Amino acid sequence: MGDVKTDIEIARAARKLPIQAIGEKLGIPAAQIMPYGHDKAKVSAEFIRSLSGRPDGKLILVTAINPTPAGEGKTTTTVGLGDGLNRIGRKTLICLREPSLGPCFGVKGGAAGGGYAQVVPMEDINLHFTGDFHAITSAHNLLASLIDNHLYWGNEQGIDSRRVSWRRVMDMNDRALREVVCSLGGATNGYPRETGFDITVASEVMAILCLAVDLEDLERRLGDIIIGYRRDRSPVFARDIKADGAMAVLLKDAMQPNLVQTLENNPAFVHGGPFANIAHGCNSVVATKTALKLADYVVTEAGFGADLGAEKFFDIKCRKAGLKPAAAVIVATIRALKMNGGVSKEDLGHENVDAVTRGCSNLGRHIANVRRFGVPVVVAINHFISDTEAEIAAVREYVSRLGADAIVCRHWAEGSAGVEELARRVAEVADSGQSAFKPLYPDNMPLMEKIETVASKIYHAAEVTADKAARDQLATWEEQGYGNLPVCIAKTQYSFSTDPNLRGAPEGHVVHVREVRLSAGAGFIVAITGEIMTMPGLPRSPSSERIFLNEQGYIEGLF
Amino acid sequence: MGDVKTDIEIARAARKLPIQAIGEKLGIPAAQIMPYGHDKAKVSAEFIRSLSGRPDGKLILVTAINPTPAGEGKTTTTVGLGDGLNRIGRKTLICLREPSLGPCFGVKGGAAGGGYAQVVPMEDINLHFTGDFHAITSAHNLLASLIDNHLYWGNEQGIDSRRVSWRRVMDMNDRALREVVCSLGGATNGYPRETGFDITVASEVMAILCLAVDLEDLERRLGDIIIGYRRDRSPVFARDIKADGAMAVLLKDAMQPNLVQTLENNPAFVHGGPFANIAHGCNSVVATKTALKLADYVVTEAGFGADLGAEKFFDIKCRKAGLKPAAAVIVATIRALKMNGGVSKEDLGHENVDAVTRGCSNLGRHIANVRRFGVPVVVAINHFISDTEAEIAAVREYVSRLGADAIVCRHWAEGSAGVEELARRVAEVADSGQSAFKPLYPDNMPLMEKIETVASKIYHAAEVTADKAARDQLATWEEQGYGNLPVCIAKTQYSFSTDPNLRGAPEGHVVHVREVRLSAGAGFIVAITGEIMTMPGLPRSPSSERIFLNEQGYIEGLF
Repeated sequence: MGDVKTDIEIARAARKLPIQAIGEKLGIPAAQIMPYGHDKAKVSAEFIRSLSGRPDGKLILVTAINPTPAGEGKTTTTVGLGDGLNRIGRKTLICLREPSLGPCFGVKGGAAGGGYAQVVPMEDINLHFTGDFHAITSAHNLLASLIDNHLYWGNEQGIDSRRVSWRRVMDMNDRALREVVCSLGGATNGYPRETGFDITVASEVMAILCLAVDLEDLERRLGDIIIGYRRDRSPVFARDIKADGAMAVLLKDAMQPNLVQTLENNPAFVHGGPFANIAHGCNSVVATKTALKLADYVVTEAGFGADLGAEKFFDIKCRKAGLKPAAAVIVATIRALKMNGGVSKEDLGHENVDAVTRGCSNLGRHIANVRRFGVPVVVAINHFISDTEAEIAAVREYVSRLGADAIVCRHWAEGSAGVEELARRVAEVADSGQSAFKPLYPDNMPLMEKIETVASKIYHAAEVTADKAARDQLATWEEQGYGNLPVCIAKTQYSFSTDPNLRGAPEGHVVHVREVRLSAGAGFIVAITGEIMTMPGLPRSPSSERIFLNEQGYIEGLF
Repeated sequence: MGDVKTDIEIARAARKLPIQAIGEKLGIPAAQIMPYGHDKAKVSAEFIRSLSGRPDGKLILVTAINPTPAGEGKTTTTVGLGDGLNRIGRKTLICLREPSLGPCFGVKGGAAGGGYAQVVPMEDINLHFTGDFHAITSAHNLLASLIDNHLYWGNEQGIDSRRVSWRRVMDMNDRALREVVCSLGGATNGYPRETGFDITVASEVMAILCLAVDLEDLERRLGDIIIGYRRDRSPVFARDIKADGAMAVLLKDAMQPNLVQTLENNPAFVHGGPFANIAHGCNSVVATKTALKLADYVVTEAGFGADLGAEKFFDIKCRKAGLKPAAAVIVATIRALKMNGGVSKEDLGHENVDAVTRGCSNLGRHIANVRRFGVPVVVAINHFISDTEAEIAAVREYVSRLGADAIVCRHWAEGSAGVEELARRVAEVADSGQSAFKPLYPDNMPLMEKIETVASKIYHAAEVTADKAARDQLATWEEQGYGNLPVCIAKTQYSFSTDPNLRGAPEGHVVHVREVRLSAGAGFIVAITGEIMTMPGLPRSPSSERIFLNEQGYIEGLF
């Protein structure tokens, strides 16, 4: 393995085309591309508006089994499949989420693919990129500042300072900011109160940016944000303190999709990146809808495993944006299936066909779940050097019994040449007209029933429990006209259940809804099960200690 | 006045050239320009390195009398003079500071010039621009996060958590963050302690970025930052917790100068913007030094009036960067001189030659002060429609008695056509070889004596007082090897004294040094006189309430 190149070395050796040339492949005139350097660009709002009459391409979702420490390679497979489709002559555009800057300095590697299936420039994409997350941070914190300023100058709206729900955000892993008391230091600094910071990807502004269809819709949604409550429990909206206009101004450029390229010079949009637990975990609607106008096939991904990511992609993003996915790819690795079959991380190197077969229960349930939405499935086995023929055969057989194909992909090592078979099969399925997409539940189902529907049909839970406070809160929101919103369940990504240690395909567990939150601007109800961390910390020896600029001015240690 | 256009209307009507064409005027190849959209760009480090053998152009500082609510127009005059010099055939490059985003949502108007003397795109320049301030915010807060993380994981360095001097920053006016208690909520969130946020321009990282000559120097200075003290009072440096490399990575692009254009398509660098009280208040050394290689004349500005801005420009920036200014322009307006002569803001509309003459004492002292540095002076009277002939004549006569010229400029209303006379005179003075620049005090003067020298020679104070604690602290720093640093005095900008109401040219006042701080990375000692606000608040009705995107997607209400 001594001569295996790191992701950053491969990325640095990429022969990138000028971003205008990538735009040209999609028919975007250079004047409608707003470059950021020579290899990144935003697509203009004017150009996007000009596309409205065009037909849509086919939308392909890449999702995965429940994540394990072994790694599944969902983004890598999304990039690889996009390159593979282009290789076999299908005009394809990839749509990815933007990674968060903060976690890069903790333990996380990059989020721009890996090996020979990457989008570049990966250093930029993983750090400041085109500034979208910074703009979201600014807009979020402007609202926070305006709230405390409103309290300071007499609180005309009568906000109950104990019930301000809007916190602040920072794109940094900083546990010290999780809970703070602000406005200390005397009268000139305002009224002290408890509050805290979340990481930027957890901001409702992020979810809003990713669901808004244009700037007008963005501003309306920003105005709809609930910042807190009055003593009579009536909600106070961002527009009540006149924050929506200035927030939209700060987000003007951030709303435009970012164009980059793969190592094979195929186009990719990388735009927006909301959390996949307290938010819906998909790239922006604007990017996806624009991509569908520009290409025959659009390959996109959703966060975490299919129980969280695909469900939200279908029930929130597709429902709200009127998208109709034509096919879904579920990514699995032999290693991760083994872990789902009960093998510890240390023992992954040994062949264990039984464990793989046991672990397939996890995959099998995700296949059935995705089909519930009417979307046909292809399984991608993201190949690792340690995989054995027998292990692969076991997966193929298991999947075949479910009436689907499991196809081995070697894009990490070989680029598009290693993913041709998957690309052919996915194109065939997408073109077949098999898909009959529909969301899991109708808009008019009561909120608690929506939660129960996801829990029983997707998680295979026996029961949903919730405190009276949570049930009352849902009832209140229904009275206030929020009953037709979809639900966004925040649950551990490691299991179908709420117990992260329960791998495989658990049945009959209980899902307890600890808390419910209303993201009125984004347009969904968040149901929180278990502890959801919205501001990560750093490890004892954070990766930042090993990140530096080398003598040539290149970034070292980032991945 | 009904048909007078606003700054933003004028800016929007600008016929901008592609930024590559602006670069071409300076001989920068398109490949060495990293575009941000079509009208903003960064100049590559590679290109900057290639310039090292070239001769330097002439450096012209634009400074001003003490600011008053009447407004002086220093940035406007800097832009106007740059356009004027280009108009008379002198190849000139303008170097400005980047404005801060936060204050735009409070009361402040834009900081990109005004009328027909602006740099564009002014909306972008005043908001996210090329992301430099966001990068500084990230780098600053990464360090803060690493400090609390170090405490959390066992505090190997033995940092005294009561003596952590590094705070956090945000580019937002948010008084609620001035003083906070962080790390609340129990053991998993760390050790609670008092801290707070400053606005990003007050960050030492900002001062460092503006004084560093290249990325290597930047990283060294970042490592030199003192983040706090151990129980034995020994300093803990950013490099002790291995933060410097990752901070430099975050600042890699931010180090490169930003190229934009004036309304008349002349080139301007807009790069860096440190506070002019607790820091030195000038644009980056990298931008200024690069500009001197690319143009025959470089027009730049310094913060506030000449007592703060020009003094720091000369004693900190020029001293450290080896710059030799060829001429200085002191900007005054009839209205501001009247206020310095005792007239209230309400009465500025009436002719008052006596008040103008009395107010000239302020101008006169700034002229004498700048000459103390060996730099010849030209006075620019930035014309307002209400100025009378007699008032202008009074200033001309006063300045003429001091052996200098006061020249009326109409760049705000007329662009470069209104500033030809000033441009001719400034070029003549700069070309004359009159300048014999030297800083006010030598490096090896004791720190307290440096403060006293500035206070007596520039402020005309009778005495400097300081608590024993401050004097002891200065002595300790001298022992630690910081004695040769320049001093950066944080004082009210409204008066030569520390009393903001004392206009004109006060004599014999006492300057009390309340506190001293060491910016070891930036390389200066800050002496704080009076209350210095490093996190502004918002007014009762912040300008954000009137900022929005109009139906064409243009920003309204920003200026």
